[in-house]
This record gives sequence, structure tokens and C-alpha cells, in this order.
Amino acid sequence: MNADVAQLVSVAIYSPVPDETVRFFHDLLGMEISHREGRSVYLRAYEDFYQYSLKITEATHAGLEEITWRAASHDALQRCVKAIEASGCGAGWREGDYAHGPAYAFKSPDGHRMKILWELDYFKAPDDLRSKLRNRPSKRPLRGVPVRRIDHVNVMVSDVARNRQFFTNVLTLRLREQKIGEGGVEVGAWLSVSAMVHEIAIMRDATGSRGRLHHLAYWYGAQQHLLDIADIFSERDVRIEAGPGKHGVTQGYFLYCFEPGGNRVELFGDTGYLIFDPDWQTVVWNVANEVDLEKSSIWFGSQLPKTFYRYGTPIVPGASLEEIRSS
Amino acid sequence: MNADVAQLVSVAIYSPVPDETVRFFHDLLGMEISHREGRSVYLRAYEDFYQYSLKITEATHAGLEEITWRAASHDALQRCVKAIEASGCGAGWREGDYAHGPAYAFKSPDGHRMKILWELDYFKAPDDLRSKLRNRPSKRPLRGVPVRRIDHVNVMVSDVARNRQFFTNVLTLRLREQKIGEGGVEVGAWLSVSAMVHEIAIMRDATGSRGRLHHLAYWYGAQQHLLDIADIFSERDVRIEAGPGKHGVTQGYFLYCFEPGGNRVELFGDTGYLIFDPDWQTVVWNVANEVDLEKSSIWFGSQLPKTFYRYGTPIVPGASLEEIRSS
Amino acid sequence: MNADVAQLVSVAIYSPVPDETVRFFHDLLGMEISHREGRSVYLRAYEDFYQYSLKITEATHAGLEEITWRAASHDALQRCVKAIEASGCGAGWREGDYAHGPAYAFKSPDGHRMKILWELDYFKAPDDLRSKLRNRPSKRPLRGVPVRRIDHVNVMVSDVARNRQFFTNVLTLRLREQKIGEGGVEVGAWLSVSAMVHEIAIMRDATGSRGRLHHLAYWYGAQQHLLDIADIFSERDVRIEAGPGKHGVTQGYFLYCFEPGGNRVELFGDTGYLIFDPDWQTVVWNVANEVDLEKSSIWFGSQLPKTFYRYGTPIVPGASLEEIRSS
Amino acid sequence: MNADVAQLVSVAIYSPVPDETVRFFHDLLGMEISHREGRSVYLRAYEDFYQYSLKITEATHAGLEEITWRAASHDALQRCVKAIEASGCGAGWREGDYAHGPAYAFKSPDGHRMKILWELDYFKAPDDLRSKLRNRPSKRPLRGVPVRRIDHVNVMVSDVARNRQFFTNVLTLRLREQKIGEGGVEVGAWLSVSAMVHEIAIMRDATGSRGRLHHLAYWYGAQQHLLDIADIFSERDVRIEAGPGKHGVTQGYFLYCFEPGGNRVELFGDTGYLIFDPDWQTVVWNVANEVDLEKSSIWFGSQLPKTFYRYGTPIVPGASLEEIRSS
Repeated sequence: MNADVAQLVSVAIYSPVPDETVRFFHDLLGMEISHREGRSVYLRAYEDFYQYSLKITEATHAGLEEITWRAASHDALQRCVKAIEASGCGAGWREGDYAHGPAYAFKSPDGHRMKILWELDYFKAPDDLRSKLRNRPSKRPLRGVPVRRIDHVNVMVSDVARNRQFFTNVLTLRLREQKIGEGGVEVGAWLSVSAMVHEIAIMRDATGSRGRLHHLAYWYGAQQHLLDIADIFSERDVRIEAGPGKHGVTQGYFLYCFEPGGNRVELFGDTGYLIFDPDWQTVVWNVANEVDLEKSSIWFGSQLPKTFYRYGTPIVPGASLEEIRSS
Repeated sequence: MNADVAQLVSVAIYSPVPDETVRFFHDLLGMEISHREGRSVYLRAYEDFYQYSLKITEATHAGLEEITWRAASHDALQRCVKAIEASGCGAGWREGDYAHGPAYAFKSPDGHRMKILWELDYFKAPDDLRSKLRNRPSKRPLRGVPVRRIDHVNVMVSDVARNRQFFTNVLTLRLREQKIGEGGVEVGAWLSVSAMVHEIAIMRDATGSRGRLHHLAYWYGAQQHLLDIADIFSERDVRIEAGPGKHGVTQGYFLYCFEPGGNRVELFGDTGYLIFDPDWQTVVWNVANEVDLEKSSIWFGSQLPKTFYRYGTPIVPGASLEEIRSS
Repeated sequence: MNADVAQLVSVAIYSPVPDETVRFFHDLLGMEISHREGRSVYLRAYEDFYQYSLKITEATHAGLEEITWRAASHDALQRCVKAIEASGCGAGWREGDYAHGPAYAFKSPDGHRMKILWELDYFKAPDDLRSKLRNRPSKRPLRGVPVRRIDHVNVMVSDVARNRQFFTNVLTLRLREQKIGEGGVEVGAWLSVSAMVHEIAIMRDATGSRGRLHHLAYWYGAQQHLLDIADIFSERDVRIEAGPGKHGVTQGYFLYCFEPGGNRVELFGDTGYLIFDPDWQTVVWNVANEVDLEKSSIWFGSQLPKTFYRYGTPIVPGASLEEIRSS
Repeated sequence: MNADVAQLVSVAIYSPVPDETVRFFHDLLGMEISHREGRSVYLRAYEDFYQYSLKITEATHAGLEEITWRAASHDALQRCVKAIEASGCGAGWREGDYAHGPAYAFKSPDGHRMKILWELDYFKAPDDLRSKLRNRPSKRPLRGVPVRRIDHVNVMVSDVARNRQFFTNVLTLRLREQKIGEGGVEVGAWLSVSAMVHEIAIMRDATGSRGRLHHLAYWYGAQQHLLDIADIFSERDVRIEAGPGKHGVTQGYFLYCFEPGGNRVELFGDTGYLIFDPDWQTVVWNVANEVDLEKSSIWFGSQLPKTFYRYGTPIVPGASLEEIRSS
């Protein structure tokens, strides 16, 4: 009944311009740098409790390196690993990642690299970052419009149903909302293990590509902050793709932009709505129907451009990736 | 590991001026009346998924009638009942409540009446209330500053530790934050089963009374709405006790007022922060320490008056209550 | 040096569906009906100080009846009348309009009907509408998302320069911002007599039509309210044309919609910026230049559709207008 | 009829800890340093159009150095000077202040030092600060929660009526709102020359002292920013005296704090309400009446502590001031 996966821990991305990418997250989104190692920089939002929620690694192209999940317990981790192995998606145990304990690596059916772990390092604030708010892991920063925590990740897939089944059947996530298109084919899925509507969303890649990253999302919790960061983006030539606006699905207030390396980033206003019903019935939007098509994407605010359905950043960013990683 | 209780369903209160109390929730907080029966009126916020989250019953005095919980599953309900019976707090099965299936009644150690159930009726919007948002159970109303859903309940107790243990040990709620006073005595506890910091809070009754209601809380999700409703309250002589302001504990944006019957109601701005960590360590505020004392109650905004610690509405509102109930 | 015109008092519009139009302003925008007379309904926002800021009259088509200005003093009115007469735009004195004293009627060069007056009736709140806020002319209403006051009016013209000169040279308004297009031709002008950037804006009608109304605007003063009313519009099938977003010109937060009769209405978030500089130099955007073209219209948020430049509601709404007026 | 004074230009304050005071305005309120000279630092908010709106000078104690006004025109300046000289408050012409042209110095009846000028330097943004928003004099900064512009100043006086008359009769400001106490004595006055309710407020000094500064105020225009800066102040031990809350007088959303040097600073949320009525009748609150007493100060939010009525920073901060100034 209860999910064995507990939460999204971090997303690791590639950037061809890592210094600019780090500046974007540090200067504009107010994130803290917690570690540097090799060609990678590790950052966290000021209300992320663990050592990092974002890893940026230099590469020839933008792309997704890896998504990390935390299991609900040590035992839940073992159950997950068993289920993943049985699914044929497993890629074996791995150790030694910064701030992460032993992790089991696997791939989504579409090939997105992921890992799941139980042990990991919490962030311990040094004196100058320690907040008097005992439930806040570090002080609210003075830079930019600081995001509060990682919220969710969205992946593009060649086959929504197949990937969605992996997350519901193998990883025990719950299907909160979905979009069904012509002929009943699944075109979008929003899945979670918590009261949030999604820790991961899966959407059909209109180009037919496999295994791309659509976006990672950070949370503000206040609509005004979407306006504030949009103002700053307009001042500083950060490309806004869409928003601010409100989705029908999830009821989320969104702003989509591209970090300088080319990965799409969503800034998330309030929490949308939360789900406490233990017997939740998936909300189904039939996008073959015109009303659902319109209202599910955009409840109000700017329409989504074609790029939204066609642009993603790939799993393997370039031929030289392995060279870079082994360097 | 996972809680057998899933969520707070509803709170039932007494009011000596039920028409005015209903008008408060309907006209100012935009709630919908879903049912009337005998001396009771049932209401819901526009994003409450069940038939009601608030029951108002006429009585000689303000007070708490009952708090209703939903179990995580049919089996979880059986486990809960067994645990409650073993604790000696059980009061037996009950049937026939409006929109609620069979429920097991019990009392908190301090005597607050509660019940837990699995089956209950969902709200089915009639045509004129149906939203095009498929994840919104009814249209956003045009009255007042409409609250979105029930959030939590706060009870005053004569002995925090004893009551807190009942909720953690018997009902399997998790202790998210707590306040410890002089000599290590527990003076406040915030407990939840979801990502929210609390579905129920327990605070020491400074008068030493037993079993009183401190407040029930409805959620806005936007800070501006606290300002809007405060403006309306000031126009219409609704007494604001404290706020708008931000608590340290829970990080919640609050506004406390009294409905015309005398029960305290909290309006809740954003979600504070959410907890996804499956290994959450209780946040402890030591209020014998001056900084924690100040910052835990009020991170910023208006101080809490003495009434906040001394005023509550009782379980049994008056001698004539039984007469009223049997009428 | 100082303007002889002091402020925009009211806008009178035609609607083919006056009951629906009144419901839109009354139920959704929370305006109060202060008077009904013949085929007309008069309304005001809760912080409008005069008897009305909006007059809705039944007609065969949507359109603009008239814009009313108040002079800065009795003497200023005489000076204005003299200047208007000299310009050849005058149409003579008129008496007997509801809540308005003697007024001098005139037309903009493009033919928009206007009048200017000094004497007019203030709104005196009856007991049930009286606010305890002595600077608020009536209580904040409980309906919809109530607008606070009339903000500005925007007219479409066949020749921006000619109409703009009338407002600056004859009516002594100041040109706060302007858009210059190919070949230095004026394509937009924002004019005011107060600290606001505009009480009236003038934009080129892309269809070449003369004398149409682009929109009238009501003010919220809080960005959240644009999101709230957009949510309500989406629930209730009010067509949103664009927004929420932020203009470059005026820095205003906007939401454009159509009232049921077909006239465009803008809801205005915060005040944009205010002008106190007595020696203000007109801000010039050269929209032949791509950056200025983009940033002046949309600083961020949804792009403006073609209708924005092509749709307006005419001065004379239909053949039967005179019949209606004489009825 | 029209005022000869056009606007508040800048406020000059003393600080015994100038580096900390500068850091407060620069790091937390996001102001830009435009100049340093001797023991003084000059700053501006990002939407202040002139070279500076705040001058901070090292001194032994906190206090007010000077308030600078701009006249409505060159001729208006001459009229003002004549009127001030006739009032006996004049202190002669002065030249050579940084970024300010020839200015006429004077004192309020209570002794607050002021000057009025016509010529002054506009801020010309260097490339890295230039905004693509042509109506924004410099880019929105990335530091803290940046204020947008200077809003108003509030002075404490020994005799409200006498000082108020100086501003209305000599400087031609308009009395927008006032508080009258027992026996009809004036206890507070809010005066402006623009659509804002006040560029200057005058309040009775409960200690009977003469010529102190109550506060200077910077403007946000968004309520959320008061919450954001309050959060930051609580993190960083900036003392908040009161707020966030909403005044009845002016309808302003306020937050009062102390900069590290000891001067009180107000952060101002939205604009309150604006006045366009050319025949405005002063709003009178009779604070001998209990309702007016309560509602005029606090419409909702935290009550004002006694310090609010008793603490101010003096005109002459210390015996060594002249030494400091001549050094």
C-alpha cells in the first residue's frame, strides 16, 4: 500500500558552460554551493535538508546525468532493488558518490539513468549559515530570488504507458493525474509518493526521441516570487519559455526558463493542491476533448509554445562524455 | 512504519449562534453548505473532496463536538481500532452519521471526542458547481475570500506528553516538531501522517483545563489572502486575535480569529514547509531558552496575546447539551 | 505648468446584453450598483469616491458612449472649455446627467465622445456600506475579487500624433511614455496629469478605424488578485485575451478580458511606477528596434495576440442608438 | 492652487556605525551606492531617478541631518524661497552639495533641517546597470529584497498644528489626513503634493522633544516583499519594531525596523490609496473616540508598541558633530 520510494533527492545535469550554469543557480536562484569535485559542482536550495539537490557537471552538451531517489527505509530499499532487478532495468550497486551512501543504479524503460539509496548526508550548516529557525537547514540567502527546495523532475519518453507502468508497478509510485489522447493512448502522467501531485512527471516526446529530460523544478511557495524572478530574468537575458501561468494538471503556478547550458528549469509557485486521500482515484484528462486539452495545460496565463513539446535535453550529451567522466 | 491514520476529515463544533456561525463560514470564508439535518449544518471548502469538513451544531455554548479521522485503508482501520481498544480510550463502533460510514469512536487521554473511519461519501458537484478543473471538486466560489481546504486542528491538553504519546504510539502519527519547557516538560507537539508538519497540534492549556479545542484551521495557500480576509474581518467586526504573522514552528503564515459562536479559527497562508524525509528527526525547540521561546512562536509579526494560551472552547459545551442532542 | 484636467471620472459603455454586463462587474469584480435610470445602470468600485465610475447602457452593439473628466478647479474648467472651443472639438454645454453637474462636451480628433466638469456628486455610504476606514468610501465587498477604483482608459485612433497633441496641447495632459515606429511615426502614447503614468492611453488602430475604445481599466493594487480573478474567469467562461503579465511601458501588471457585452476590460495589478519628477522627460520606445518592440509590450508573461491590435468597440454602436437614447 | 513643492528628493541621516548602516541598505534592501565623499555614502533605490535618495554620514549618534525637497519649477522655487523667508524659517542659499544644484536651506518650526532646490543630477546608469526597461533607471538588483524608491519621511514634533501649518501655508502641501485628540488638539498630520497620501507625516512626540526624525520610508509595491524582508530581518537580527500590518490612516502596509545605527526605517508595501480628487477634503480621525483611535493606527496586524510614540532620532546627534562635519 505505502510506497517504498520516499522522495526525490537530487538531479544531476550536464552543462557545456558550467560556470554560467552555476552562476544561474547561485546568483539568480540563490542556491548554495556545498561542494566542488572534479568537473562537478554540488548545490542546494536553502530549505533542502540534504547535502545537495543539484549536481552540475561539465560536458560537451546539456543533458541529464542522473536522478536520485531515496527509499522509505532500509528494508524498502531492498524491496525496491529486488523489484527493479526483476524488471530487468537494474544496473547494479554503486558506492562512493559524494554525500550519498550505497546506491542501486537503474534505468527507466526509456533509458533515463537513476539510482535509489537509503543512506545519505544531511546538510550541517556552518555558523554563518545557521538559521534561528530550527526547521530551516540554512539561512534564507540574500542573493536573487532564492528557491526553497527541489520539487520535482519531468522526463520525456517515447512511450508513456510503458514508462509509467515502471514507476507505478516497480517503484510503487501512485498515478495522481494523467492525460489520455486520441485512441486512449497515454500522453502524460504525474506520479507521487507524497501529498504532492508529482515528484516525477512523464510526458510524450513529440519528436519520438527516447530518454530526454524535460525539466527539473524548484519550489518557491509564493506566487510573487515567480513575478520577481521573471523580472530578473528579463533584465538579464535569461530566456523564459512560458509563464507565469497556472496549469490545470497539478494546479501548479509555473515559469519555464532555460539555464545557460540549455536545460529547461521550472520555477514553481505555490504547491498547487495536495493529496491526502488514501484511496485517490487518478484524475483523467481526455485531451482528445478540446476543453480538457486546453484546460489541462493552461488554466490561465501564457500558452505553451511548440518547443515545450519538442525540446528536451538528452541522456548522453555527447560522444566525449565518457572521456570527460574518466578524466 | 507507515501511519495507519491517513488524514483529518472533519471537525464538528458547537455554536450558541449557529446562524451567525454558518454565515461566517459561508459568506466570509466562502464555504459551501452541503447538508442540513436537525440542528446541524454541514459545510465544505471548495477543494475539500469529501461531503463536508465542518459540522456546526446549535448548543448552549461554543465547543468541540468531535474530530473525524480517516484510516489509510480498511485494514489500517482494523489495526487502529485494535490499538485504541488496547489503550483503553475506545468508545465503540457507531453508524449512521451523515456521509460517514461505520466509525470507531474514542477519546483522547484528555477527553477530546474523536472517531476514525474508512468509508465516507465524496462530494459530487451538481452542474452549477462543477469546475472545468478536473482536480477541483467544485468551482471557486464568489463569496468572501474562499478557503481551499481543511488543514489541521489544534487541541489544548492538561498533559502534553500523555496525549502526544497516544497520538504517536496508538494512532501512529509522527512527531514533527515539539516544544520543551522548564525541566524538560513537553509543552507543545505538532504531529502528522503526511508531508504537512501537522494535521493535529497539541498544546498545554495554561489554565490546567482538560480537553478543550484551541482552533481548527483552513488553508489558503497564498499570503495575500490572509491580508484580504483580515481586511474583511476589520470591516465586519470579526475579532482578530493575532496575525497576520509567521510562526517559527511549522513556518506557517497565520491569522487567528473567533467565529461568532466563540470558537477560534485559524486561516493558514502558505503550506509552511513540507516533510519528505522518511527518517525525519523531530525538530525540538527548547522554550526555556529565550531565543527559542521567541522564535518558535513568532518568527515575525504580531505577538500572541495571553488569551492564546488561556482561551479554548470545551468538549462539553453545557449542561443542556444532552437535551439538545436528544431533541 | 500644472494640468487643468485633474482626473478620469467615469467611462460609459454600451452593451447588447446589459444584464450580463452588469452581473460581470457586480458579481465578479465586486462593484456596487449605485443607480439605475432608463436603460442605464451606474456602478462604482468600493474605493471610487464619486457616485459612479461606470455607466452601462443597453444598445444593439458594444461600444463607448462617453469618457468623463474632472477639471482641476472651477477656473481650470473655464480654461479647458476655452481651449477646447478654440481647437474646434467642442460640442457645447450639457446639464442634467445623473450625479454630474454642468459639463462641457467635446470629441477627440478621432471622434471619441468626452465631457469635462467640475461639480459632481460624491458617494455617501448608507449605514450598511459604511466602512470604519474613514478614507474608504464604502466597505470592501464580499463578492468576487473586488476592484478598488477606476484606473485608466485606452482609446484606439487612426492617427496617434494628432490625437496625442489634442490631449497634451488642449487638455494639458503630460506625455509620459510613447512608442515610435518605422519612420518616426507615433504609434502609442501614455498620458497623465497625476503621478500615475496614464489616465489615458492612445494606440494606433491596426485596422485604420477611427474612434474606437480599446479598454477601460480597474485597479487592484495586488498581483495576487490578477491570479484570483483569472481563476474565476476560467471557471466561468469569461474570455481572457492576455495575461497575467507585465508590460514594459508603464510597468503595469495586466490581465485583459472581455465583458459579456464585448468591451475589453483590463484588470490592473500594482501601480506600475509613479512619476513625481516635475521635469519628466517622455520615455521613448523605438519599436522599429526589435528589443524595444518586444520589451515595451511584454516585459514578461503571455504575448499579446493579434486581436489586441485589431479589436476595439466603436463609438457608435448601431443604427438604433439614437432611438435608444431618445427613448 | 497647485503646490510649489513637487517631491521629496532625499533624506540624509547620521549613523554611529556607518559601515553597518550602509551594509543594511545595500545588502538587505538592495540599494546601490552611487557616491562616497568624506564621511558620507550616497545611495539610491533601483527606481530612484536621481543620483541619490539617501545620504549616510558618520556621527557620534543616530539622527537626521537634512531632508531635501524639489520645487515644481524654477519659478516655483523662487516663490517657495520668498514664502519661507517671510515665515522666518529661512537659512539662506547653499551650493556645492553632491549632485544637487543651488538649494535654499530652512528649518521646520521644530527645527528639522531641510532644503529645497530645482536643479539636481539624474542617475545615468553605466552599462552593467542599464535596464532594458526604458522607464527603470537601473537594473533590478540581485541583493536582498530590493526597495524600489524613496516614499516618504515622518517627523516627530512638539506641536503638530504649528508645524503642519508651516507645511500647508508656506510650502503649499495639502493636508490629506489628520488625527485630532482630546480637546481638538492636532496629534498627527499626513501631507502631500502628489497622488500619494503623504510625502511627509508629522506626529506628536510623546516625550515632548523637539525636532526628531520618526522614520524614512522606502517603497516595495508588493505585500509579499514585506514578508520576505521580515524573514530576512529575523534571520539576521535586525530589530523589527512593528508589522507587517496595515495602517488605517493612508491604508499603508507597513513594517518598521531599526537600521543598525538606530534610525527607524519603514518598508512600505503597496501604495495604500491614491488621491486624484482636486477638491480633497481632509480625512479626520478623532482619536479621542475609541474606534478611530484603534482603527486609524492599526487596521489589522500587530499593535504599535510604546516606543513607536516615544523613540525618535534627534536633529543634532552629538556634541562632536560639528567637529566631525568640519573634519
